Amino acid sequence: MNVLLPSISPLDQTAMAAAQARQRTLTKPPGSLGRLEALSVQLAGITGQPLPRLRHKVIVVMAADHGVVVEGVSAYPQEVTGQMVGNFLAGGAAINVLARHVGARVVVVDMGVATDVPPHPQLRRRRLGPGTANMAIGPAMSREQALAALQAGMDVAAEVIAEGADIVATGEMGIGNTTAAAAVACALGGFAPAAIVGRGTGLDDEGLRRKIAVVARALAVNQPDANDGLDVLAKVGGFEIGGLAGLILAAAAHRVPVMVDGFIATAAAMVAVQLAPACRDYLIAAHCSQEAGHRAMLDWLGLRPLLDLDLRLGEGTGAALGLNLAEAACKLLAEMATFAEAGVRDRA
Amino acid sequence: MNVLLPSISPLDQTAMAAAQARQRTLTKPPGSLGRLEALSVQLAGITGQPLPRLRHKVIVVMAADHGVVVEGVSAYPQEVTGQMVGNFLAGGAAINVLARHVGARVVVVDMGVATDVPPHPQLRRRRLGPGTANMAIGPAMSREQALAALQAGMDVAAEVIAEGADIVATGEMGIGNTTAAAAVACALGGFAPAAIVGRGTGLDDEGLRRKIAVVARALAVNQPDANDGLDVLAKVGGFEIGGLAGLILAAAAHRVPVMVDGFIATAAAMVAVQLAPACRDYLIAAHCSQEAGHRAMLDWLGLRPLLDLDLRLGEGTGAALGLNLAEAACKLLAEMATFAEAGVRDRA
Repeated sequence: MNVLLPSISPLDQTAMAAAQARQRTLTKPPGSLGRLEALSVQLAGITGQPLPRLRHKVIVVMAADHGVVVEGVSAYPQEVTGQMVGNFLAGGAAINVLARHVGARVVVVDMGVATDVPPHPQLRRRRLGPGTANMAIGPAMSREQALAALQAGMDVAAEVIAEGADIVATGEMGIGNTTAAAAVACALGGFAPAAIVGRGTGLDDEGLRRKIAVVARALAVNQPDANDGLDVLAKVGGFEIGGLAGLILAAAAHRVPVMVDGFIATAAAMVAVQLAPACRDYLIAAHCSQEAGHRAMLDWLGLRPLLDLDLRLGEGTGAALGLNLAEAACKLLAEMATFAEAGVRDRA
Repeated sequence: MNVLLPSISPLDQTAMAAAQARQRTLTKPPGSLGRLEALSVQLAGITGQPLPRLRHKVIVVMAADHGVVVEGVSAYPQEVTGQMVGNFLAGGAAINVLARHVGARVVVVDMGVATDVPPHPQLRRRRLGPGTANMAIGPAMSREQALAALQAGMDVAAEVIAEGADIVATGEMGIGNTTAAAAVACALGGFAPAAIVGRGTGLDDEGLRRKIAVVARALAVNQPDANDGLDVLAKVGGFEIGGLAGLILAAAAHRVPVMVDGFIATAAAMVAVQLAPACRDYLIAAHCSQEAGHRAMLDWLGLRPLLDLDLRLGEGTGAALGLNLAEAACKLLAEMATFAEAGVRDRA
């Protein structure tokens, strides 16, 4: 390992106990707010605040291209990655609509889009190349590039946290990146490609068979080391997957909660957890994607998703909705009246 | 049947087709927003608007007491119903926090609370008595009271819709009302009490056994007619359950969508659907409660819940979160850029 990992502390047990104690005094039967109560306690432990508040919610959308698209693994042409980055910057994509809806800011990062993305004041450029190499015939990137991807993600996390973010959500865009994410999940989790690979943006049966074979080939050709997240990232990952893994590691080191989106973001989370298992407690799984293997990946991480809405778009769309639930959980903890304040009799 | 039911139209197929067609032009793979796409199409069909917007969201919280509490079916004393109404009016309950969070208005209706609730400008009084009679030894209310409960709910729906509501959510409060709701569900759905009755606000094992026996006794004593929702409501229902059933019927008649909360609201929805099956298409199930029988009741209605967060508080808390998803679905449909607008290539 030659990446300088940030130091990640365990959750703050004192803050968690205080949040848990307050939950018991609020005007409701104990536990009746279910996962929202547990979420408020987790957020207390992450932030070290007995009454955590989420005021500056940031969705980081990392975009990159994938050399493996030449194998015919996507229903859309590669140029769509750059075009969708333009759509994000113009505010017309699903993630923009949902970010506005939940009061979050979208930060777009070019981690290595194949086509030219015109400069834009809202675009952060951390390009590592015009997309990865084709992992079906060799490593997607060098170990140095994988390190640089992690570092870029850590830098972006530090920037948005310095700008005030008190929770970050992971978003991504990259034609072909469900193929890379599936390969990463199989390499780290020991899953069979057929159990993980899904239809992505909408492959037909033949396309799905081809994609499974491509993932199997990428694993056979590259022999990624399951005990070395950096090796897996380099050989079968992607620039945006590495960036998101770095983002997760640095957010956890800063005691900032991470709302994990769907299939690709979860593959990035697997890389981060392989590198630094302590970051797992800082993760909140926003939703279960319709993409085939997502549930198994979440199980590997030990995360239970908040939402199950058959989403499979990525961009951070599920995470945006998850941010709204996390904010609700914090508000309930902070703003509900206690039995004593409200003059309501507690149970006998 | 001697209730004058409002006329409920089928969903507007033209508006649904227009919404569906627009979904296919938006910058995302077709279907990738999953249930949010389906929800936008349902809302188009309900409202008759190809681009439905939810600007005035109203949560109607109906409160009433239940004579069956003398059987020891609740972990809390009856006076808590009125005390919680005070908490709703003061803005300190979970439903107030969540309503503020999602930008909805809370309307509180006293349908028959046992204790004195002081007048308040935000409280609507539609009292049918100081709680129902004990259904374990006879009917909970008369048929006339059941009719009046439905009528009160229809009146409240008409009022809030006249005030601008374009979606209504069902909330409730009433110590003992999971017992009544379970009896209603068993009567209408043919379920065994043990399959439906849950721990409510937190019964222990002995309390749960007692509650199951009480529901079985109420059904045996009263013999409610499964083919007559009004008879079921009168014999084993509650004033707030009747009110919510009336609210649902009138909202559907006004082409206003209804966000159904948890266990008690779903029992009210079963009454409404038994009386007028056409109202079913106007219902959106917000969440699956942790209360034992809720999933079976949703299945009986043919509704799939949006959320599954182990909530079991009632008040409309799950419905408030559901309102937020419905609003998100409408915004995605209306605000996302099309492939043509954004200059993004559609799939080959």
